[in-house]
Amino acid sequence: MENIENIANTYSQIQKKMCRILESADGEGKFNSIPWKKEIGAGDSLLLENGQIIEKGAVNFSFVKGKFSPKMEQLLGEKADEYAATGISSILHPVNPWVPIIHMNVRYFALNNGISWFGGGIDLTPHIIQPEDAISFHRTLKEICDRYDARFYPDYKKWADNYYFLPHRNETRGVSGIFFDRLKPVEQNSFEDLLNFTIDLANAYPEIYAGYMRKYGSKTYSEREKEWQNLRRGRYVEFNLIYDRGTKFGLESGGNTESILASLPTDASWKTNYVPEPGGFEEKTLRLLKKDIDWVNYIK
Amino acid sequence: MENIENIANTYSQIQKKMCRILESADGEGKFNSIPWKKEIGAGDSLLLENGQIIEKGAVNFSFVKGKFSPKMEQLLGEKADEYAATGISSILHPVNPWVPIIHMNVRYFALNNGISWFGGGIDLTPHIIQPEDAISFHRTLKEICDRYDARFYPDYKKWADNYYFLPHRNETRGVSGIFFDRLKPVEQNSFEDLLNFTIDLANAYPEIYAGYMRKYGSKTYSEREKEWQNLRRGRYVEFNLIYDRGTKFGLESGGNTESILASLPTDASWKTNYVPEPGGFEEKTLRLLKKDIDWVNYIK
Repeated sequence: MENIENIANTYSQIQKKMCRILESADGEGKFNSIPWKKEIGAGDSLLLENGQIIEKGAVNFSFVKGKFSPKMEQLLGEKADEYAATGISSILHPVNPWVPIIHMNVRYFALNNGISWFGGGIDLTPHIIQPEDAISFHRTLKEICDRYDARFYPDYKKWADNYYFLPHRNETRGVSGIFFDRLKPVEQNSFEDLLNFTIDLANAYPEIYAGYMRKYGSKTYSEREKEWQNLRRGRYVEFNLIYDRGTKFGLESGGNTESILASLPTDASWKTNYVPEPGGFEEKTLRLLKKDIDWVNYIK
Repeated sequence: MENIENIANTYSQIQKKMCRILESADGEGKFNSIPWKKEIGAGDSLLLENGQIIEKGAVNFSFVKGKFSPKMEQLLGEKADEYAATGISSILHPVNPWVPIIHMNVRYFALNNGISWFGGGIDLTPHIIQPEDAISFHRTLKEICDRYDARFYPDYKKWADNYYFLPHRNETRGVSGIFFDRLKPVEQNSFEDLLNFTIDLANAYPEIYAGYMRKYGSKTYSEREKEWQNLRRGRYVEFNLIYDRGTKFGLESGGNTESILASLPTDASWKTNYVPEPGGFEEKTLRLLKKDIDWVNYIK
């Protein structure tokens, strides 16, 4: 648990850089820093609200330490007395339904029994799926993964497919991405490599999103597209509150509620027994909210 | 598990009567029946949308049977091979922020090892708390409880206080009500008595709500009150998706997703780091979202 201070410093600096890039792409919105301090540690919630393109964007950094509770033992399947964790997590909700929702997280988790690991991922949730965007998104992620290990992309893409899934809806949250956890050094990947892998992902994140902001940020949209966006936001809320382990772990461990739930959109809506119009963009999107789509080699 | 068919029939009839009373109080909205049948059983989801007073009202009846899974064993702390369950559950979301949200559930749960019990409750979630309504609501519940057992009201009010609580917000969901589970016959309360207790609650439910509909259904409201309603709906979504055991159990056991999540409002919203205006109705409401308020003897 000794080197976690350095990692926390690195992550904290990346967080600030990330926000500068996103602010510059937005052109208007500014991130406000809401530093928090609790018994378990401290963090800085950077929150952008009512930007030109980003309606609500949260970029949270935290560095916490505490007793490893029975509840956490159960959640994580590890035995220890104390833990320390640091990470950045971010979710961006755009104004325009053509701009996707994005989520990123990198984290380092250390137990006082000597066990530690990296975790994280990036996944994309377009309200309206444009296959070419899903393709380029996955190719970018694959390129980053391949710098470290050719098995990372296929393994972590599969993990994301399974993780970002709503069984009660039989839908994926979006077009997936990569998800990894318990990533520990092995012969071909040193501790340094793994740290760099998380740094590369965190650095790529605002650049990837800035691309969608430029492409769709000022595209005109209809009332129908906006309504659909709100329904998709409803699904995002369902995923985060029912399944997301980061949210569960955060709330369980007494984390900062406002930072944890800054992932929720400004508005969301629900329609019971909704049936999409045949052939409409809603139906096309629903058809692509499936596991195991090989986006890297997808043929439109 | 033999007499469950009769109980299911009784509940199913009450469900229909409940909807007739609510339709009559609404004056415009009609409940549409969406019967469903799955491997585990069947049900009827009665859903009213876009009424004059009720924006979204769900009154669900279900009668299910199935294997008692390890997950359910864990959730319920019982060991058995099979279970059967029947019940009515309802949530009503009004258009007008002055009309409260209400929730009611009565249910009978039987295991094939001979163990069975009743459960249920009613609780009220005003967007804007008017103490006199919370007082009369609790007095009505106490009167029903007292017909059966003087300990019911204090015990089940306390249970509701603890159950309808969002620890991450340090707020109760609303002004509480009663909540009970594992209610089994004892000397002074026969099986018949307990069944009648659930029937009395279910019968009182639409009458109680019709009172609020008459009182507030056509009251004028401001944009500020409507915005606050949406924030309170956000909290309602948080409770239902993070904590509600009925929702968890329903989704876990492969119940009908649309019926289970018909409890969610049409719209909800979130504001990060919201601070109420000092002295405003929002602050007054937040101050009353606390456990252990003795509403029956509350002095305004």
